[in-house]
Amino acid sequence: MRRFVRDLITEWRRLKMPFEGQTVVIGVSGGADSVSLLLAMHDLWTKQKIRLRLVAAHFNHKLRGEESDADEEFVRQLTGRLGVEFAVGRGSIQTAGNVEQNARRARYDFLRETATKLDAFAVLTGHTINDQAETVLMNLVRGSGPDGLSGMRTVRQLGEEHCSQPDKTSEMLPFANILLVRPLLSWATRINTEAFCNDSGIEYRYDTMNEDTAFKRVRIRKILLPLLEDMNPNIIETLANTASLMQAVVDSSGTSKYVSSNGSDLNLNDLRVIPEAERSGQIRDWLGRCRGTTRQLQLKHIQAIERLVVSPKSGRTVELPGGKVVKSAGRLIYEENRVEN
Amino acid sequence: MRRFVRDLITEWRRLKMPFEGQTVVIGVSGGADSVSLLLAMHDLWTKQKIRLRLVAAHFNHKLRGEESDADEEFVRQLTGRLGVEFAVGRGSIQTAGNVEQNARRARYDFLRETATKLDAFAVLTGHTINDQAETVLMNLVRGSGPDGLSGMRTVRQLGEEHCSQPDKTSEMLPFANILLVRPLLSWATRINTEAFCNDSGIEYRYDTMNEDTAFKRVRIRKILLPLLEDMNPNIIETLANTASLMQAVVDSSGTSKYVSSNGSDLNLNDLRVIPEAERSGQIRDWLGRCRGTTRQLQLKHIQAIERLVVSPKSGRTVELPGGKVVKSAGRLIYEENRVEN
Repeated sequence: MRRFVRDLITEWRRLKMPFEGQTVVIGVSGGADSVSLLLAMHDLWTKQKIRLRLVAAHFNHKLRGEESDADEEFVRQLTGRLGVEFAVGRGSIQTAGNVEQNARRARYDFLRETATKLDAFAVLTGHTINDQAETVLMNLVRGSGPDGLSGMRTVRQLGEEHCSQPDKTSEMLPFANILLVRPLLSWATRINTEAFCNDSGIEYRYDTMNEDTAFKRVRIRKILLPLLEDMNPNIIETLANTASLMQAVVDSSGTSKYVSSNGSDLNLNDLRVIPEAERSGQIRDWLGRCRGTTRQLQLKHIQAIERLVVSPKSGRTVELPGGKVVKSAGRLIYEENRVEN
Repeated sequence: MRRFVRDLITEWRRLKMPFEGQTVVIGVSGGADSVSLLLAMHDLWTKQKIRLRLVAAHFNHKLRGEESDADEEFVRQLTGRLGVEFAVGRGSIQTAGNVEQNARRARYDFLRETATKLDAFAVLTGHTINDQAETVLMNLVRGSGPDGLSGMRTVRQLGEEHCSQPDKTSEMLPFANILLVRPLLSWATRINTEAFCNDSGIEYRYDTMNEDTAFKRVRIRKILLPLLEDMNPNIIETLANTASLMQAVVDSSGTSKYVSSNGSDLNLNDLRVIPEAERSGQIRDWLGRCRGTTRQLQLKHIQAIERLVVSPKSGRTVELPGGKVVKSAGRLIYEENRVEN
């Protein structure tokens, strides 16, 4: 068994994931990361190490015209050759606002819907150590406490990221307890995934959006990380290690320290008992998670929300760029403005 | 009273520092940060807001020949004009090894000795928000958990940084409980300190070593931070805020979570009870603090120290580049190799 596949099954075991009798959806964009994950999972399936129903799911966000369609066609053909079931979703992404975020949301909506329909226990994505390092830096740059510096979790409930539409997620489409699992996150680098595809004789697609430094993540990958690499050649692993140290701290500090939040809501009583100095950071972190960015958030916004927390006379709503925060039933709720078509 | 002076006395009060009957040593390099601190403290003294004996202390590290002597002369003349007592130390810094670190150690040795002789309650330094942001980035790049990302503390015991010479610090020169206080750290930017000097009609010295990108801190200041500023114009304040959020977490997690360390020593029992996954990070962080860097530290070194922790048969010593770790009396002790002259 090749090293990459062995490392994957070792991680699968470590994460206590099931080996049979279940369905799993693999998100496949066509890039090296997700293709290597699909190939390695399929390899484990053919070797009967994993007896799960594998379904590859691709979301065509139509952002790059023919290129997007070619990505879809590539994944369709690859899954056809492998004999893996294939699900495709298509959608037009709002190009107003944060395009990256809109695309990400539409993709996760599709993955969650697919997993729900198929009664899958989990959606797998091909995030690597590199993505983790980039996430840590993104959060550091936008301003974040321990939570943001923890980066992505290897396993979490799918749905938490959808705090933009609390009504939809909580009422229209109840979560079927689906996991989001990133089985490459803790050990594979982008170099590993590309090498595994190459060694497998399988091409992968290259996303031209990865070159567009208008996107903050691309700037971090193309400009910031190479600079940091000059100072520390192991910067990727170093940042990923920082993320796991931070996760340990965040997990151990528990709800008495951290404000509990189900994503869209923030518990007012929790916010009231923490030291005042931390309150603004907590609110900021939470809004960052809800909005996908803290861009355009100003001190006056945070202060208005703090008044909402401490004063019974401060009204019920604070308007923010792109949305608002509502005080209701002992919680703060973030509601995003709907983009008009 | 000018804004800068008002902010300083507000911080002095917040930190619960004494207002009379004591001696305080102010470290003055001649740069804008320390000169502004000296000027503002002196202003509070002339206005009788603070009735402390002020002593300016300058360490001439002789690293830049005539320039270093001119710095000394500048501080001497400035203190003379202000009528503030002046203490000077001179030393030749080891140019082998980490020059920055050697210079820093010699400077703190001098400041501590001066404070001890004068029976001062504290040494003040002119570190600003900018220094805090740089420290967070330095630690992030070299690899650090929550502790390193907490940056500098506004108030701490002086002496903790001297883990290179545990024998000397613990036996030859017992600490007289002297505080290291950074009264500008939480609110003043470099721009503030320069403006305050300019508004006071006082020149300040410019350290040409601040231009030498051979020093990691200078690379961070001159190259990394401007790049991050493109992504977040408030990056300095953002990083300083991250540091204080991290401090709150580190403080709240207490010794049950964090390995207690007096700088040079690490408690073995503490290390044994934390999860294995965190042990290597804790050891690495500790060595980073002791050595001033994690450079040249390899995985095999950390692993050898972990064996020292868990196995009674693993010997007493692990050799590291530039020093060694010794297991003794239930603790790990870091001892730096002495540089030969």
